[in-house]
Amino acid sequence: MVMTIYWEGGQVMMLDQSLLPVETVYIECRDFQTVADGIRRLKIRGAPAIGIAAAMGLALGAAEIDAEDHDSFIKKLLPVRDALLATRPTAVNIQWAMERMFALLSINRELPVGELKSLLADESQKILDEDIRINRAIGEVGASFIHDGDTVLTHCNAGSLATGGYGTATAAIRVAVEQGKRIKVVADETRPVLQGARLTAWELMQDGIDVTLISDTAAGSLMQHGEIDLAIVGTDRTTRNGDVANKIGTYQVAVLCKENGIPFYVAAPLSSIDFTMADGSLIPIEERPADEVTDVFGKVKIAPEGVKVRNPAFDVTPHRYVTALFTEKGAYRPKDLWRLSGSANLSVTDSALAPFRVDSVKKTGI
Amino acid sequence: MVMTIYWEGGQVMMLDQSLLPVETVYIECRDFQTVADGIRRLKIRGAPAIGIAAAMGLALGAAEIDAEDHDSFIKKLLPVRDALLATRPTAVNIQWAMERMFALLSINRELPVGELKSLLADESQKILDEDIRINRAIGEVGASFIHDGDTVLTHCNAGSLATGGYGTATAAIRVAVEQGKRIKVVADETRPVLQGARLTAWELMQDGIDVTLISDTAAGSLMQHGEIDLAIVGTDRTTRNGDVANKIGTYQVAVLCKENGIPFYVAAPLSSIDFTMADGSLIPIEERPADEVTDVFGKVKIAPEGVKVRNPAFDVTPHRYVTALFTEKGAYRPKDLWRLSGSANLSVTDSALAPFRVDSVKKTGI
Repeated sequence: MVMTIYWEGGQVMMLDQSLLPVETVYIECRDFQTVADGIRRLKIRGAPAIGIAAAMGLALGAAEIDAEDHDSFIKKLLPVRDALLATRPTAVNIQWAMERMFALLSINRELPVGELKSLLADESQKILDEDIRINRAIGEVGASFIHDGDTVLTHCNAGSLATGGYGTATAAIRVAVEQGKRIKVVADETRPVLQGARLTAWELMQDGIDVTLISDTAAGSLMQHGEIDLAIVGTDRTTRNGDVANKIGTYQVAVLCKENGIPFYVAAPLSSIDFTMADGSLIPIEERPADEVTDVFGKVKIAPEGVKVRNPAFDVTPHRYVTALFTEKGAYRPKDLWRLSGSANLSVTDSALAPFRVDSVKKTGI
Repeated sequence: MVMTIYWEGGQVMMLDQSLLPVETVYIECRDFQTVADGIRRLKIRGAPAIGIAAAMGLALGAAEIDAEDHDSFIKKLLPVRDALLATRPTAVNIQWAMERMFALLSINRELPVGELKSLLADESQKILDEDIRINRAIGEVGASFIHDGDTVLTHCNAGSLATGGYGTATAAIRVAVEQGKRIKVVADETRPVLQGARLTAWELMQDGIDVTLISDTAAGSLMQHGEIDLAIVGTDRTTRNGDVANKIGTYQVAVLCKENGIPFYVAAPLSSIDFTMADGSLIPIEERPADEVTDVFGKVKIAPEGVKVRNPAFDVTPHRYVTALFTEKGAYRPKDLWRLSGSANLSVTDSALAPFRVDSVKKTGI
């Protein structure tokens, strides 16, 4: 499996996804600025992946700090954290990773600064390892909703490239394939940045999974003709009530699914669920530069010089369109999602949650 | 307004749309072969526009013929007609234009050859003028559904570039602007061939109309946020019951409009309505080459080498999503469209149809 990001000799190696599928190049990050720049410029993307990257970036930034005591160390680390937080305002995973890293510092405040630095580096590796474990668990949950012979629609890339490995939405597909189910995938190309065409199609082809690429405009037509059995997408941030912020165009897929009686699933690791936010209207939506729309890969201009552009990077799918969310703790209806609140810290046991889990969904109906 | 095609000093001037929006170049067509080549190589496109071009091409071909009598003139003109028909074998408008031109020759067989040549040139101009008049009429009808301050969503290019001038969907926008209404347009880029980005955005900018380009994935999000007041699209073929075949992605726009309580209108000249076809399931849907999806403008590859692709060129929007159709005889609900059957031949008078016309649509609801 291609690694998205990893430690090597005190450096962070980051796969430059902006060059895929043409080139496979790793960026050697020797400082946090290079990591932040990579996140900002979408060289690494996908909610879990940028959480991991931010954690590694913080550890890199910490390593460079010259400080004698805990307080001055923290004081110098805060601007590093803030720079990382500012890279992608919609992404909850960066915030989650920063909170986890700072909580670790807080409970180890008696340790010398040198050991704190090592702790941070180790913790970032732990976040990566846990991510892969969580994705595998999400895949096991999601695969039970995929039947032999199904065609799965995906949007954007919630694949291994969006995570530490395995993917979230694609984890369900990968596990289903491992279980011997004959699955086909239809991948939305996902304009403007084309993550579906460049990344999802590429990584599924690498694994020998049957994938067909379409323009975003063709998804509805395929649904009309009965060629899609279910949709699985990822999420950048899901709120307490089950509203799902994800790549622009996700909302449209969800509406089209509802209209055509097709289940719409969201692969949502607990780290992407913001239990402190009541609903999706509160999620800040990042508006990205016009040239993502007007220039394909910065190489071909597809629109008139000077045209006005709107380029919201994400949209919010209201919970009423979501059939179920796949988490590492099981599949949940949006209305039951709040019950998982706090379970990332294991304060809620699996058995207590079991009655609210969704184990199957009828073919037609949301 | 930018002219798509026109006569100038015995030559046909054809805007080379394949170079838009980067360059604005007119091809000076001195012979029918140049016109035929322009149609074949998509330098001119859009059903009404290529009908006009073919008529002008026939007149150009006729002018070059050296013949004494009617029969030898016709004999030499037939290969010209066949060359034009062969450019786009499925385009009904070329066939329609050729039939109209030859019918004119047939009823004027007593005239000297020199006068027949002038008749053909005049008739091609008449076809152009009529097209603009029809579009203008459609625009007058459509404009009454656009209110001051409205933002109109468009898909693909049903603009002046697809017609002799004025456009069909864009005619409504142009008339509304002429009426002093402050209108904004949001143009879907319309993957895979990007007619919205390349043509609609460009031609509206030429006219100083406020246009904003978006990726197809962003339309739903803008609707959710109340930023779209209505949608107007064109049609390649509409059936008797009001089902609308149009560029791929149109169905999605219609579903999103319904879901958000936004009126969805179709600009449909009578020539595009197929009253002989009962419903949209009978319309054959052309599947186009994969490289339209995988290679942008044949210049930039956006997907992995060898990926499977589905590329349906059109979709069918069921009539239940269509608020009203704008025709040159007024606006009609899909359920009343059949009443216009035969009205292209003026067998149905305007006054008889008046009770079935739609004069206004409430803000919310289809």
